[in-house]
Amino acid sequence: MKRKIILDCDPGHDDAIAIMLAGKNPAIDLLGITIVAGNQTLNKTVNNALNVCQYLDLDIPVYRGCDRPMVKEKQVISSEIHGETGLDGPVFEPLEREEEEGHAVEFIIKTLRESEGDITLVPTGPLTNIAMAMRLAPDIVPKIQEIVLMGGCYQLGNVTPAAEFNIFVDAEAAHVVFTSGRPVTMVGLDVTRKVLCYLEVIERMAAIDNRASSLFCDLMLFFNKTQKEVFGWDGGPLHDPVTIASILNPEVLVTRPMYTEIDIRSVQSYGRTNCDYFNVTGKEPNSNVAIDINVDLFWEIIEKGIRNYN
Amino acid sequence: MKRKIILDCDPGHDDAIAIMLAGKNPAIDLLGITIVAGNQTLNKTVNNALNVCQYLDLDIPVYRGCDRPMVKEKQVISSEIHGETGLDGPVFEPLEREEEEGHAVEFIIKTLRESEGDITLVPTGPLTNIAMAMRLAPDIVPKIQEIVLMGGCYQLGNVTPAAEFNIFVDAEAAHVVFTSGRPVTMVGLDVTRKVLCYLEVIERMAAIDNRASSLFCDLMLFFNKTQKEVFGWDGGPLHDPVTIASILNPEVLVTRPMYTEIDIRSVQSYGRTNCDYFNVTGKEPNSNVAIDINVDLFWEIIEKGIRNYN
Amino acid sequence: MKRKIILDCDPGHDDAIAIMLAGKNPAIDLLGITIVAGNQTLNKTVNNALNVCQYLDLDIPVYRGCDRPMVKEKQVISSEIHGETGLDGPVFEPLEREEEEGHAVEFIIKTLRESEGDITLVPTGPLTNIAMAMRLAPDIVPKIQEIVLMGGCYQLGNVTPAAEFNIFVDAEAAHVVFTSGRPVTMVGLDVTRKVLCYLEVIERMAAIDNRASSLFCDLMLFFNKTQKEVFGWDGGPLHDPVTIASILNPEVLVTRPMYTEIDIRSVQSYGRTNCDYFNVTGKEPNSNVAIDINVDLFWEIIEKGIRNYN
Amino acid sequence: MKRKIILDCDPGHDDAIAIMLAGKNPAIDLLGITIVAGNQTLNKTVNNALNVCQYLDLDIPVYRGCDRPMVKEKQVISSEIHGETGLDGPVFEPLEREEEEGHAVEFIIKTLRESEGDITLVPTGPLTNIAMAMRLAPDIVPKIQEIVLMGGCYQLGNVTPAAEFNIFVDAEAAHVVFTSGRPVTMVGLDVTRKVLCYLEVIERMAAIDNRASSLFCDLMLFFNKTQKEVFGWDGGPLHDPVTIASILNPEVLVTRPMYTEIDIRSVQSYGRTNCDYFNVTGKEPNSNVAIDINVDLFWEIIEKGIRNYN
Repeated sequence: MKRKIILDCDPGHDDAIAIMLAGKNPAIDLLGITIVAGNQTLNKTVNNALNVCQYLDLDIPVYRGCDRPMVKEKQVISSEIHGETGLDGPVFEPLEREEEEGHAVEFIIKTLRESEGDITLVPTGPLTNIAMAMRLAPDIVPKIQEIVLMGGCYQLGNVTPAAEFNIFVDAEAAHVVFTSGRPVTMVGLDVTRKVLCYLEVIERMAAIDNRASSLFCDLMLFFNKTQKEVFGWDGGPLHDPVTIASILNPEVLVTRPMYTEIDIRSVQSYGRTNCDYFNVTGKEPNSNVAIDINVDLFWEIIEKGIRNYN
Repeated sequence: MKRKIILDCDPGHDDAIAIMLAGKNPAIDLLGITIVAGNQTLNKTVNNALNVCQYLDLDIPVYRGCDRPMVKEKQVISSEIHGETGLDGPVFEPLEREEEEGHAVEFIIKTLRESEGDITLVPTGPLTNIAMAMRLAPDIVPKIQEIVLMGGCYQLGNVTPAAEFNIFVDAEAAHVVFTSGRPVTMVGLDVTRKVLCYLEVIERMAAIDNRASSLFCDLMLFFNKTQKEVFGWDGGPLHDPVTIASILNPEVLVTRPMYTEIDIRSVQSYGRTNCDYFNVTGKEPNSNVAIDINVDLFWEIIEKGIRNYN
Repeated sequence: MKRKIILDCDPGHDDAIAIMLAGKNPAIDLLGITIVAGNQTLNKTVNNALNVCQYLDLDIPVYRGCDRPMVKEKQVISSEIHGETGLDGPVFEPLEREEEEGHAVEFIIKTLRESEGDITLVPTGPLTNIAMAMRLAPDIVPKIQEIVLMGGCYQLGNVTPAAEFNIFVDAEAAHVVFTSGRPVTMVGLDVTRKVLCYLEVIERMAAIDNRASSLFCDLMLFFNKTQKEVFGWDGGPLHDPVTIASILNPEVLVTRPMYTEIDIRSVQSYGRTNCDYFNVTGKEPNSNVAIDINVDLFWEIIEKGIRNYN
Repeated sequence: MKRKIILDCDPGHDDAIAIMLAGKNPAIDLLGITIVAGNQTLNKTVNNALNVCQYLDLDIPVYRGCDRPMVKEKQVISSEIHGETGLDGPVFEPLEREEEEGHAVEFIIKTLRESEGDITLVPTGPLTNIAMAMRLAPDIVPKIQEIVLMGGCYQLGNVTPAAEFNIFVDAEAAHVVFTSGRPVTMVGLDVTRKVLCYLEVIERMAAIDNRASSLFCDLMLFFNKTQKEVFGWDGGPLHDPVTIASILNPEVLVTRPMYTEIDIRSVQSYGRTNCDYFNVTGKEPNSNVAIDINVDLFWEIIEKGIRNYN
């Protein structure tokens, strides 16, 4: 049976690969793609999602969501990593694909309401859309089967010393999600930094030689350049697709149940995911936190995902 | 020309008087009443609004809104002031009046979108509905003519030493509203504590002898009792109706432009409205803060409002 | 019997009047003056204290204390109120009076240790010296008879919307003092703003026509000018001497027992004295907070204090 | 030339090994041991230091310091790790060794003042004594050659998810030290968790067979037991001696210059050392943070240190 998912994202290079991986997969029923501001402003992330769908010929509805965080008045974006468009690198043909009418939050609410409790939410951007849906329609919360998100870290942050980008951009939304009572799998920097897309990976995928592999390579060549400039790595960490990969094959991740609390009251540590690895607080776990990743298996899943476009 | 308003409230004794004052007033076009959790849980505040409308024979649509704050996971209520029902005191007939279909936030969005920018929002409870509407549909923000809210204080709080109840319940929502860029008039405890509803006021209104005066007295007799128990006052402060009174006659208030910042990062001072009375920060004012009230004029407005039900 | 006090201050115009009031008073045994940075840098506040003592011919030991707050790395001063020297206005003769050897904190510790528990501490600046003494020598804490301090407010701050200057400069020190378990009388802005030194007060004191009255007038003429510029008042609030006045005659103040908590975790409300006026927290009072002042009596005490120099 | 150091500690099992390592070493001139509350209450940590000195026949002055943090009113201790005495395990003979007169903070101030700027401070407990000295006598700060401290982490904390014990106990003191402008080497959990004292290490040291090795084994057998219970490790991490080891041979550590900021304003992340590993803040480094350790070299240094007691 196919896993029903809604992919909530802010493409973004690694989001684009997540769309690629989920969009044409016999094991996944991608009900819709909902877009949030994050790696770039909302207009750009919507455009990027549409471009990816058009380029890969994916017939999946794309919904425009929130253009700023729930509470903070300013949007933080990440143009130094994702470029001016949010998806610098590939050159797309003129965009004909159109977004759906209606708000992403409404789509999430409606789809969950009508579901049989078998939908997994996969957020790979700031959690604004998800949290807004939870607060606007609390009745949908029990309908969420599971949330598998990319975000957070229990080691080093990437946007501040304390915090990872997706959580930092809207920590209040993250707080809503982590306190929702639904199963949360947190795929954080602690594992995604281990899947660095070195040149050899790019070459391996290039060899597949289809539209998807071509897009993959165009994206990763740009991404690797900015990651090198900002963090000094020789390969960009492929954060977002780890969520989809772990849905396709749970063995890709080692997780550990932990109580995770989002710091929404600190100025300095704002957005830190305080994951209680050693259970020093004694609190009940509210999340499964990824603590290790099978790197080889991950690249196999990616390769297989790209081959689905043959 | 009538002032178009949406009253967003959590009845609550003083909210009920605000409905009474706005509901049948030749100067006000009350487009709808939107309900939020606050003085009691959402089911109860919705019921209370419907009861008041039914009792006063007001044909105004009532919409159910958010049942909890934007970010915090727990709802704070005020049953020690407003009793088990949230409107203890009067005995209402069986409820036949029904709430509208659709969410309060959607009503607010739709109404503002279709408006000509001439609608004033009057929130007298936690600001959750208003802030959710602002974030879900940023395009409506410029359509708001003005926000006249009851909440906050620059002197003593009432739910913590630092904070007033409405702001404390959802400080994040208050932050959204105060940073919205729209004109905000803050009617806080600094003035509403000056309109204490002593027994002589109750007697004065009782003398009007209509349905509205009867409801007023039933409400205030209970309210005065709990206010006496909690704060030691001989009369309950009629917080919420001051908003409507100031719309009917701006002279009832003295206001001062101030930069007001909501503390959403402190645990201890959470929800404090830091109003920069002396402009020590040098920041541009974002609010008109009520600093004094014409008590006599206020009671005249209340009396006149009750006489509208003759 | 004389009241034994140590005056811990940061002169500062109103501190200087406090020295004047305590320095030559048949009811007070002023054991020493300990100096802290605050209204100006430490070198200047030490100099100012020595100048005042020399000018008034007071033979009281002056000790140099802490030059910065306990924790914060930067000293905040108030030159816009107290001028470049911290005591602008009067012209003093060349300084011959010398400070004592040894640190103010050591003097406080030694004096309290050797006492019979009959010494009152009167801090009118940031509480750094007092708190450092308490932490360096916890055995002295039970020896403190009482602490009567100028600082804080439960209404409007003066250096931020939330905080009063003395507490804001070193909120951590204030936290130490308010949690010390010793009786604290907090004389805050809520009352000191009521004793505005209008021109008529200056004229009344000038008429006494002695060295003290002359100093009083030189100080207040400058002080009134800056208070007018910053806060718009026609008379400067004589904050610090209210502490000494209340020791001379407790009837000058109305106080109320309250639980007071210093906000040391907020950035925005840092240094707020959250005084629980209505006991909404239900916590045991740890302070007597001044809530009203007998203005006439206060000026009588000041006048009498000045006449002591005849 | 010998390195002059003052060891400021709260023994504690790993502190005791640090004393052992520094106390009889041809390369170190241990000027004094200053004691702070931490792993246990002050009376116990003083006693433990004296017991270790007596047992190892070390003629080094021991000074009693602060019995609680600079600002927080309550001392946090770690009896679940270090037992009731703070040094459970070994049985000591009746204590005859006596502490020196005078306060540890005074000793630190006096010693630094009289020095030629060639003294290294080695704090292995909460930083209260060091910070109190810095604030009481700012003139000594430039006299400190270097501070090599055990504390903090940029990955997982041990007392809360965010914070390491020494920093958590007195984060305000840590803030003072990290903002002092003096060179700080931070030896945090990120490396000390790599030197786990497995049974094979204990057996290796036991084979040396002198008084020091005997004490080492008694301590570690107890320590390993509680570390296993609390964290699930098969060997206790030998945190504190890494500081001394790195002074004896800098090659034991790999360090990286980072800007490190202590979170003293958060409740939840209180005491987190936000180390800017990737320099995302762009701020000038104020610390050398240990990022890796040569485990073999470390155990060699420990072994050699124990052999010094032959």
